[in-house]
Amino acid sequence: MPKIVDHDERRREVLSAATAVIVRDGIDAATSRAIAKEAGYSNGVLAHYFADKDEILLSALRDSHRRIRARITERVGDARGLAALREVLMDNLPLDEERAQETRLEISFWSRSLAVERLAEVQRAEAAELRAAVRRLLEEARAAGEIRADEGLDDLTERLLALVDGLSLRSLLYPGRLGRAELERIMTTTLEAL
Amino acid sequence: MPKIVDHDERRREVLSAATAVIVRDGIDAATSRAIAKEAGYSNGVLAHYFADKDEILLSALRDSHRRIRARITERVGDARGLAALREVLMDNLPLDEERAQETRLEISFWSRSLAVERLAEVQRAEAAELRAAVRRLLEEARAAGEIRADEGLDDLTERLLALVDGLSLRSLLYPGRLGRAELERIMTTTLEAL
Repeated sequence: MPKIVDHDERRREVLSAATAVIVRDGIDAATSRAIAKEAGYSNGVLAHYFADKDEILLSALRDSHRRIRARITERVGDARGLAALREVLMDNLPLDEERAQETRLEISFWSRSLAVERLAEVQRAEAAELRAAVRRLLEEARAAGEIRADEGLDDLTERLLALVDGLSLRSLLYPGRLGRAELERIMTTTLEAL
Repeated sequence: MPKIVDHDERRREVLSAATAVIVRDGIDAATSRAIAKEAGYSNGVLAHYFADKDEILLSALRDSHRRIRARITERVGDARGLAALREVLMDNLPLDEERAQETRLEISFWSRSLAVERLAEVQRAEAAELRAAVRRLLEEARAAGEIRADEGLDDLTERLLALVDGLSLRSLLYPGRLGRAELERIMTTTLEAL
């Protein structure tokens, strides 16, 4: 009797292995060979599911974003405007181990996206979704009179997302300077000043 | 008669080649072999000046920071407080091709620093200097009554530097969204709100 292979399960295992290697050893180290070894499969099995290393990496990034979106949707619940915005931005900061690992994955992709156009395109498409969500919540907040600043909403969106990226990066690079309490406090002060 | 070799000049050429490779092809591609080829020297010549690839990369980063510091010192001139702070922060944004290349170099190091502790240490030491300069200027600005916000100066320093890092990153990843005019406008609005 032929062995029954659960392809979805295998695919998930390979992605999970890829994420583990990137987060632990950096994206340079995430070769097909290293990912196969981590997953406990041969290079041949990997080739069956993914065309090349970049496809594995892209799938790992998309997969991470899908999990983040599900978590944020749950977290925001019925909140609207500024309250919902606060949940979205806070959830994007590396305030626990799970999110610290997500941040490491993002940072690894930033530098590779600058060198590989195919990755940059995906990075841009994925970023557009978060940007649209933040802008929509800022519109709600302004309509509800929750924002005093007269800065344009496009600029405000970019400023908040740049702050999230910069704080996330710096808390991983300089953990002694920027702990979780500092991250939360700086973001809270920023939102209160809107 | 033995050929006279200008060692400083050769070292500079190797660093300049390393920077060119990183900025053009990404840090993954910056192998000793690729850097030697770019510089027009053999791998043996490279080994004479630098112990390994990471030492070349670190030297390129330090060299870039040295040039940035010299340029900022010149640019700040006799300015103090908020005016000087504005010059420092604006100079750290990728507002022209030279600074866009410096930003690419920084972003390449961010992800590698997360995987290689030796690089992280240098990254932290180099970042401490800019952080101290920004904090000192914020103190001057507060003493001169130029800052209304009652946010702590440590938080304010991190918030401004995180914004600079995030805006720099996003302008390279999403140039269609965040052009030079947007960068300058967002930074100006942020400083005016202090």
